[in-house]
Amino acid sequence: MPTPKLGQQASITRSFSEQDVKDFARLSGDFNPIHIDPKFAKTTVFGQRIVHGVLVSSLFSNLLAEKVPGKGSIYLGQTFKFKKPVFFDQTVTAKVDVINVREDKPIVTLKTTCTNEKGEEVISGEAVLMFNPDID
Amino acid sequence: MPTPKLGQQASITRSFSEQDVKDFARLSGDFNPIHIDPKFAKTTVFGQRIVHGVLVSSLFSNLLAEKVPGKGSIYLGQTFKFKKPVFFDQTVTAKVDVINVREDKPIVTLKTTCTNEKGEEVISGEAVLMFNPDID
Repeated sequence: MPTPKLGQQASITRSFSEQDVKDFARLSGDFNPIHIDPKFAKTTVFGQRIVHGVLVSSLFSNLLAEKVPGKGSIYLGQTFKFKKPVFFDQTVTAKVDVINVREDKPIVTLKTTCTNEKGEEVISGEAVLMFNPDID
Repeated sequence: MPTPKLGQQASITRSFSEQDVKDFARLSGDFNPIHIDPKFAKTTVFGQRIVHGVLVSSLFSNLLAEKVPGKGSIYLGQTFKFKKPVFFDQTVTAKVDVINVREDKPIVTLKTTCTNEKGEEVISGEAVLMFNPDID
């Protein structure tokens, strides 16, 4: 892949189904009833089940690996603020923006933002990756 | 659940199989060849495929939801440093330690650490959660 450029962006829009949440619960072992149990979730501030924050944030993992900086890049760090819940089958858009490219090393920092269909930020944060300039 | 206490800890030990990595790739859409393609992975600095960092970090999601602060808690933020790779079927131990409990609000900060079987840190970071003191 070419060296990422300041301001370079990529985004992806999708939703997470009940089955996705169940699959992630099994994979992670995180069976928090707020994700799994409709009756329990009804008693919470959200009034319904929500998607695991880490599952939503995997959209960044997708963008960083598939788009910017792309194939073969290695995750060095990530910060997240989980600002609003994401409900089952709700459409969200994750976006990554290159905000820094180091001159001394193949290391890039990206702003990582996920918004819901109303344009509200549901996750904000930053990712740091080592990219591989030798790969197309 | 009771209010978490400073110094309270929980940990979990497990490994991730090739099937786990494939399942997470499908769920997230992150098909980075460093996780998927043995031939490609052999050409990288790691010499073999590695588990997605976000999949390894889901162990914290598990501990935070299942142990400390526990059931019904809500993820507000997380930082990660991915310090070393985790290979397929390698045993890792994730640990959470309560390092701050706010007095004004039901909000707790935990140190989140994952180590490999040699005791080397593979992930470090901090999590911030709102806990639900009304749930057993």
